[in-house]
Amino acid sequence: MPDGIIAINLKENELMINLDANRKTPLYQQLYEQIKQKIISGEYPKGTRLTSTRKQATDLCLGRNTVENAYDQLCVEGYIKSRQGSGYIVIDVTSALLELSGIVDVEPTTITASNSVYEEDLFQQNHFPSACRIAFRYGEMDYRTFPHTLWRKATAKVLSQTNLEDLYSYGDKQGEMPLRREITRYLRHARGVRCSPEQIVLGSGFQDLIRMICLLLKTDRATLAMEEPGYDFTRILFQHHGYAIAPVNVNSMGMDSAELQNSEASLAYVTPSYQLPMGVTMPIQQRMQILQWARKVDGTVIEDDYDSELRYRTQPIPSLQSIDKYERVIYLGTFSKAFAPGLRMGYMVLPSRLLPAYHQTFERYKSNVSRSMQFVAAEFMISGQWEKHLRKISLINKKKRDILVHTIQSEMSDRVTIHGQDAGLHILLELNTTKDNQHMVDLAAQHGVMVSSTQQFWYNRKNAINSMVMLGFGGLSGDEIVEGIKCLRHAWFD
Amino acid sequence: MPDGIIAINLKENELMINLDANRKTPLYQQLYEQIKQKIISGEYPKGTRLTSTRKQATDLCLGRNTVENAYDQLCVEGYIKSRQGSGYIVIDVTSALLELSGIVDVEPTTITASNSVYEEDLFQQNHFPSACRIAFRYGEMDYRTFPHTLWRKATAKVLSQTNLEDLYSYGDKQGEMPLRREITRYLRHARGVRCSPEQIVLGSGFQDLIRMICLLLKTDRATLAMEEPGYDFTRILFQHHGYAIAPVNVNSMGMDSAELQNSEASLAYVTPSYQLPMGVTMPIQQRMQILQWARKVDGTVIEDDYDSELRYRTQPIPSLQSIDKYERVIYLGTFSKAFAPGLRMGYMVLPSRLLPAYHQTFERYKSNVSRSMQFVAAEFMISGQWEKHLRKISLINKKKRDILVHTIQSEMSDRVTIHGQDAGLHILLELNTTKDNQHMVDLAAQHGVMVSSTQQFWYNRKNAINSMVMLGFGGLSGDEIVEGIKCLRHAWFD
Repeated sequence: MPDGIIAINLKENELMINLDANRKTPLYQQLYEQIKQKIISGEYPKGTRLTSTRKQATDLCLGRNTVENAYDQLCVEGYIKSRQGSGYIVIDVTSALLELSGIVDVEPTTITASNSVYEEDLFQQNHFPSACRIAFRYGEMDYRTFPHTLWRKATAKVLSQTNLEDLYSYGDKQGEMPLRREITRYLRHARGVRCSPEQIVLGSGFQDLIRMICLLLKTDRATLAMEEPGYDFTRILFQHHGYAIAPVNVNSMGMDSAELQNSEASLAYVTPSYQLPMGVTMPIQQRMQILQWARKVDGTVIEDDYDSELRYRTQPIPSLQSIDKYERVIYLGTFSKAFAPGLRMGYMVLPSRLLPAYHQTFERYKSNVSRSMQFVAAEFMISGQWEKHLRKISLINKKKRDILVHTIQSEMSDRVTIHGQDAGLHILLELNTTKDNQHMVDLAAQHGVMVSSTQQFWYNRKNAINSMVMLGFGGLSGDEIVEGIKCLRHAWFD
Repeated sequence: MPDGIIAINLKENELMINLDANRKTPLYQQLYEQIKQKIISGEYPKGTRLTSTRKQATDLCLGRNTVENAYDQLCVEGYIKSRQGSGYIVIDVTSALLELSGIVDVEPTTITASNSVYEEDLFQQNHFPSACRIAFRYGEMDYRTFPHTLWRKATAKVLSQTNLEDLYSYGDKQGEMPLRREITRYLRHARGVRCSPEQIVLGSGFQDLIRMICLLLKTDRATLAMEEPGYDFTRILFQHHGYAIAPVNVNSMGMDSAELQNSEASLAYVTPSYQLPMGVTMPIQQRMQILQWARKVDGTVIEDDYDSELRYRTQPIPSLQSIDKYERVIYLGTFSKAFAPGLRMGYMVLPSRLLPAYHQTFERYKSNVSRSMQFVAAEFMISGQWEKHLRKISLINKKKRDILVHTIQSEMSDRVTIHGQDAGLHILLELNTTKDNQHMVDLAAQHGVMVSSTQQFWYNRKNAINSMVMLGFGGLSGDEIVEGIKCLRHAWFD
């Protein structure tokens, strides 16, 4: 046993898993689900060591990859831990789960913050010299992957088959029902989100949805707890609507829940699937504690599930909303990352608890989203093209990510550390250098490469440290990525 | 001379007007422009009596209709007055004009408010029984008039000819340049608005634009002066953004400028073309005083030019923005009334003075309007279809208005008075009855007709009086209008 922190009950061979090869769900996902259930039910208490992947594969007549995928997924979600030399061990999640079910009242565990913080200055795209050849710009996608022909066909179909009043009059302020039904269906099976179409509100992108939330939840001394570092545009939007900001440090598990307890806030904004910018995935324990906090303070958690469709190592992590039994979570999704920002479409799922206030506040408001566009998106989802597209771009982006990581490793070897490579459309590059960060960004620019500083992600800029740059790769081709990294090596280390 | 209020200088035959029959501008508009210039320049001082329409027509070899149209337009805009028995007399506008030019500093004239106020409770469309046959619903248009086939063609063209990045990436936060250029061109010749495309900001409709203004102009003790009665949704939007409301009574000339002087506000929202809900057109004098006020308090006037394209008796009134020399006016326009609400598109013209603050506040914001939709609208305007459509629906709506007014006159004779029939898509009906207003709305509903109360237009509801209902006719056919009015007579007077 490599360390003595966790008492391990050796229960090898106790895993009796029934897998059904005829079911539509992939085998590794069935295995994952069954082990997860056993952990949640307490059948595998804290410290249980899972059967090794090798043995499990033999026992269940599965490929070893299948078992490894299942274990990987459980690791990422925080149900088990991998310990070198002693396999996979169950983490204590039952107490948190029980408290959430309202059975026991447990004091929240204090989590030691790693306080690994950095620094910088992103999104200054406009000030970037136009001579750049390669821009690792965040928030971009490769528009060549957009299913343009299919979209045109769907548009033509909608414009020829929908009656004029439905196309051109004011629509439902929440969005068109056919689209809301499709989003509900999609969210349920892809993100575990439980909701009815009545809880879905369409908006013309992130800012429109956040503005609605700002109006919906505004109180006299409204304070928003935000991840530190966190998405600066969220901060700007809430500040524009008169909210105070309470920064809460991000540790290796995402937002520090102990710090959150001590904040004045009763509203928190989190990115649990893939923390922006750090790329941390929030484990199940931490998710529980965030939800417990919300319940305790009668508060609300905004779960921004941006980039959730784009996970490379494991399946998308089930959403915070999916484990929320007390209607504390507002779930935010977008079509901008996986589909196209130019469509100006996003959605949120309101807890039923907030629906009366929503209807009262927005009684006179109209939807900001073009109606015909909504019908086209619905058509696209109904036809199955949406999920087909998601699978396609997930593969494409995984390939790009692989090229990016591989090129960085071969070009810069041990002079950098890569963070957040398991999901999304950006990575963070921690530079082993004493040079000033802005200097690194400038050096890159002089060599025709745009990378971004990350300083503006910190509410308290003094906490930002000077060793990290952000590279978005969604808008680049594989060749461009390779060229860009080679130029960066040249700029920084030659 | 019928009364002694105005000293009249008889200057018959002094009007030497050169009209060019070959110019594109209609003759009556040339005549109107030339007389207006003479009034503004002081050549026709206050009290000047214009040559009679009959004599003018003979002198200039024009049809009498042409001259009457020109005089009518000058009347509506407040340059001249029609006095029974003594023809058309010039009103004093020079002092206001001079002050606006910064030459003289004149105390604003006190205007006696007519305080003709009414009452009700509109937009309660949802609570209206579904059995209704005819709904005089405000804010509706007849979607059968929408140029759907042309729109489809323009959409197909845009989707096939625009490059993918332009269609699907984040666009300019102000909107696409081709569309902004077209709007600039259109506003200049149709509404006299002077601006460059750099001052145009697209938004997904009225609420989106107002929300931007709210953020742009927000100060610690922000107060909005609003017409009383006035558009309640504007009030709601500003209140949602933390503004206090200062109601300023509407008299026969629109917002009472003397009352405005005494308000705490430095921001005013006005509907000068066609006051909502009263239908008053603000005369030139009053417009000057509103602008003088804004200059004096270093304030801003929001000119909501809704329905401006739809005038029936005279040409559209030049906008407030067109006479604003000191960058005090934010001009608001929409595609919802004349085109289609479902497109979710509107625009505003910011004075250059506010552009730096706009760019700073919204640096990180995206446009809320679908990009492809913007390209389609631009295509539509460039091809000339937009103005062709405007002419078409203006004729259609004039016809509907004629049917409505004629039917009311023949069915209800002297039991009602019609207000606001010269423009827009609604009229107000003042009922000669002692019965309670809500009772009249309910009676109508029981007979299958939806009319709206107007109570919610008053900030101070106690000032609202009980004698008026609002009838929107944009969404109805001529036959439906006739049927609706007959049912109303039956409901109210039989």
